[in-house]
Amino acid sequence: MSSPSEPAAPGRCVLLVSCQDQPGIVATLSTLVYEGGGNIVDLQQHTDPVNGAFFQRIEFELGHFGLDRAELAARLAPVIERFGMDCQVKYTQDVPRMAILASKEPHCLQDLLARWHLGELPADIRLVISNHPDHAELAGRYGVPYHHRPVDREARGEQEGQVDALLRGAEIDLVVLARYMQILSADFVSGWTGRIINIHHSFLPAFQGARPYHQAHGRGVKLIGVTGHYVTADLDEGPIIDQDVTRVSHRDDVESLRQRGRDLEVIVLARAVRAHLEHRVLIHGNRTVVFAG
Amino acid sequence: MSSPSEPAAPGRCVLLVSCQDQPGIVATLSTLVYEGGGNIVDLQQHTDPVNGAFFQRIEFELGHFGLDRAELAARLAPVIERFGMDCQVKYTQDVPRMAILASKEPHCLQDLLARWHLGELPADIRLVISNHPDHAELAGRYGVPYHHRPVDREARGEQEGQVDALLRGAEIDLVVLARYMQILSADFVSGWTGRIINIHHSFLPAFQGARPYHQAHGRGVKLIGVTGHYVTADLDEGPIIDQDVTRVSHRDDVESLRQRGRDLEVIVLARAVRAHLEHRVLIHGNRTVVFAG
Amino acid sequence: MSSPSEPAAPGRCVLLVSCQDQPGIVATLSTLVYEGGGNIVDLQQHTDPVNGAFFQRIEFELGHFGLDRAELAARLAPVIERFGMDCQVKYTQDVPRMAILASKEPHCLQDLLARWHLGELPADIRLVISNHPDHAELAGRYGVPYHHRPVDREARGEQEGQVDALLRGAEIDLVVLARYMQILSADFVSGWTGRIINIHHSFLPAFQGARPYHQAHGRGVKLIGVTGHYVTADLDEGPIIDQDVTRVSHRDDVESLRQRGRDLEVIVLARAVRAHLEHRVLIHGNRTVVFAG
Amino acid sequence: MSSPSEPAAPGRCVLLVSCQDQPGIVATLSTLVYEGGGNIVDLQQHTDPVNGAFFQRIEFELGHFGLDRAELAARLAPVIERFGMDCQVKYTQDVPRMAILASKEPHCLQDLLARWHLGELPADIRLVISNHPDHAELAGRYGVPYHHRPVDREARGEQEGQVDALLRGAEIDLVVLARYMQILSADFVSGWTGRIINIHHSFLPAFQGARPYHQAHGRGVKLIGVTGHYVTADLDEGPIIDQDVTRVSHRDDVESLRQRGRDLEVIVLARAVRAHLEHRVLIHGNRTVVFAG
Repeated sequence: MSSPSEPAAPGRCVLLVSCQDQPGIVATLSTLVYEGGGNIVDLQQHTDPVNGAFFQRIEFELGHFGLDRAELAARLAPVIERFGMDCQVKYTQDVPRMAILASKEPHCLQDLLARWHLGELPADIRLVISNHPDHAELAGRYGVPYHHRPVDREARGEQEGQVDALLRGAEIDLVVLARYMQILSADFVSGWTGRIINIHHSFLPAFQGARPYHQAHGRGVKLIGVTGHYVTADLDEGPIIDQDVTRVSHRDDVESLRQRGRDLEVIVLARAVRAHLEHRVLIHGNRTVVFAG
Repeated sequence: MSSPSEPAAPGRCVLLVSCQDQPGIVATLSTLVYEGGGNIVDLQQHTDPVNGAFFQRIEFELGHFGLDRAELAARLAPVIERFGMDCQVKYTQDVPRMAILASKEPHCLQDLLARWHLGELPADIRLVISNHPDHAELAGRYGVPYHHRPVDREARGEQEGQVDALLRGAEIDLVVLARYMQILSADFVSGWTGRIINIHHSFLPAFQGARPYHQAHGRGVKLIGVTGHYVTADLDEGPIIDQDVTRVSHRDDVESLRQRGRDLEVIVLARAVRAHLEHRVLIHGNRTVVFAG
Repeated sequence: MSSPSEPAAPGRCVLLVSCQDQPGIVATLSTLVYEGGGNIVDLQQHTDPVNGAFFQRIEFELGHFGLDRAELAARLAPVIERFGMDCQVKYTQDVPRMAILASKEPHCLQDLLARWHLGELPADIRLVISNHPDHAELAGRYGVPYHHRPVDREARGEQEGQVDALLRGAEIDLVVLARYMQILSADFVSGWTGRIINIHHSFLPAFQGARPYHQAHGRGVKLIGVTGHYVTADLDEGPIIDQDVTRVSHRDDVESLRQRGRDLEVIVLARAVRAHLEHRVLIHGNRTVVFAG
Repeated sequence: MSSPSEPAAPGRCVLLVSCQDQPGIVATLSTLVYEGGGNIVDLQQHTDPVNGAFFQRIEFELGHFGLDRAELAARLAPVIERFGMDCQVKYTQDVPRMAILASKEPHCLQDLLARWHLGELPADIRLVISNHPDHAELAGRYGVPYHHRPVDREARGEQEGQVDALLRGAEIDLVVLARYMQILSADFVSGWTGRIINIHHSFLPAFQGARPYHQAHGRGVKLIGVTGHYVTADLDEGPIIDQDVTRVSHRDDVESLRQRGRDLEVIVLARAVRAHLEHRVLIHGNRTVVFAG
């Protein structure tokens, strides 16, 4: 099996824009696209009434678009300058290269690979890395190279260095932590800002840190939740992409909370990853704007 | 109490556009707004990839907008012509005039009035009409005129004529059926196309017609639902605006389904009405496009 | 209007039992009921596999039950002794006397009164107390005495004493805080253990303390929640009865979170109050067992 | 891999009882269990107030239970006779033998096998049968024999006969249709009453028959649903075990509805199968009683 996600050329282009609100942004950008011959198929724009932050996503078809990448960049440059914008330009032809990091539990890894095989994730999954040897066969089934990098407790940084080298060697665009239970150093994280997605198996910020299902059971909550977020140096504090909950009761012990939680983890992680891969997420400080998919 | 929904002048303008997709629509409209001095605060555009239908909602501030209503209409006319568009122009200054029709059950009527009083519904509730006398005091509390128009089974059409006259006399923009249990004639409905919102107390099209909670109980469903929709001559077949469900079990008898259903009815009706009043709904054949609020 | 909840005599009896698990409890109690002539219509029993705690709710019809209250108590006494049980005996004839405390916001108060009037709450609402004068008319409409007890910031305890006196004077069984924004002293709370229900307008323990919607907005969560719980001296730490959430997005500012939150507050508070009034809640340490309704 | 579901002897016994309500049933059965030395760990009983139908599930530990299977049956016989009961006796030691039937789509099959491997399904999965050859490797990975039985359109009944023979040969207790797209004959179904579980990929009875996602798209619904149910000769009319829904919008085309639907299908089927395997489902006419898990 190899990646089923070969987009048909010439595909589409997505502009992800944020700046301080001012009149003329939508008109300027949509005119630029139109004059280049692009056809806008999806546009979402929102201005925060409180702080005047402006967010926009434009997706347009490249079929009749006359500007190549350099030409589009050249046309965008003065616009970016004029409005003081942050503007990301994404081509659906450039399928993001993705790596999955896993530890012992297989459910999230398994789910991501299965969705990818069904065509649900527009990514090129280049490698799976784990501190356990267990998932080599699983990765192999989907034709994805598997790298076992065990953690030596005496020299934890060494393994992290190996992981970083593997990711850089494969020119990875997105790192997905699929129940990867090793804490990443601030150094590592700062090298991958906005490019690592994790799930915390609680409804953040309700139960931070370790063993959230034990915490949830102890507190007697009636719903448990899962949070998909970008990883930052502040553990459990990164920008939230998606969350979901499921109902529980006094009948659930920790094991059964964990079991119900797995179903949530799988779905929330997949939704967060898909939103990122479809260029629908803008990070704004410690919050995100997630455009509808 | 009187309507708490006086928007601050000069407010905003909303354009609701649908047509067949073609390049240049977004650029043309956003440039028109920009050149008039309008500042776009929310724009949502979507093209249906299957049938090429184009939908757009633009909301812009009028603070520095230099075109009056006639001027804007004049500028829009050639654009509408060129793209073969359907284009609604809404000013938030023009608070929609709304009527509520109710029968015996008070919960939806009561909820709409309470939300309106809290400022959740940007409407001017002009009158409540009912075939029962029961809610006069309730309406009175909110300062809304109450019209009791009983139904004579021998001459059903007569009451409908009275209702129509009341609505037209008050120049009503939106008629909300808040558990109004009289069937409206095709004639009446065709005079108010796209301007009557009803809820059906089932997850349509699951249990059409009368007594859906009995039907749901008989079928042993594990979820019950409610549907908010526009009324058309085809009973229970109008375009759906919103739906929601709640979990039930074998422990629920018809009465308890009805009780759980009431909470859904109230919320789904309020959401559907608010979407309409905020000019977020486009009717497209028998379906709706509901822009995010 | 007066309470519509007069249960038909002779009604039912509910036993709420907790103790350490041991064989024979179900058999002993169900045989006792059977021999008295009672017909069990609902029984739920659960043993926590971790700590061996045993919980049971038995509801039986009194129609042919031959034991009066004293006789039932006498028969239960040796059983309670033998198993070291905590056993509450509730008769549906004894409609609980309930008080509602409110501050400025009316939505929860209004909702509870409306549900009560519809017969959804098996309670006798004896009084409404508020530190604001605003809801007198509303309470009056439902025939419930309204007591305005303003708070003097210099002598906060004085008002609390007045509230306590009113509650004791009316022999209140359940105090419901319907968005009552005054902090109750540990002293007051300890006098009403397990008999005060509050909602916290967050998904506890996510955003404790004040202004949870501001906290939720600042953190950029994708769901907001509400928690219904018993009040204890540890603010926001009492046993949770019910929780629910609703989806939000970057489009929601604090005011719109608050608006969405109101719908949750109303529903979660009503569900928690109903569970208590139907004798379906057992408090066990800092957690609850809520039997299905 | 082999079944991870070996329960520790001596395990538990579950009694599933239904009959017409009458006093003494709970007392008689719980006393019988107690006198045999069994310890009840979970009991749920409910009487339908409308038709007086009585339902009960008793789960008790066999650790100190002195009656073997024949003795328990002998003790139960007069009780069953006396109350005119239907009484199923289930031992957790007797792990149900389960077969999965699949067609082309793998997601439900894959999910059931993965859950089984994680210990979530107390079953012995004996075989996978498919009218397609595609899933042999998948089944093989979990050590489950795979039988490819293609359908000859000229002789459809022949394949059904082969499937029936395989199921009977393996003494299967539960047949799970994991997106098996062949219609089963009334004859076949009547031989497996109450022992075939299917999912219909709609919120029944909303969109019966084929292509429900096309139907849902055409109707413009705002939620799509999935129904897990027992199979009867009346297609799509069997007793419902579980249902769930997910929110959709005008942005979803049929393919994206199908994609969102897959997540629901997997979860609803797994929940329905687990409820059955845990002996928590009673069929009562065309409805089910599903006891809490």
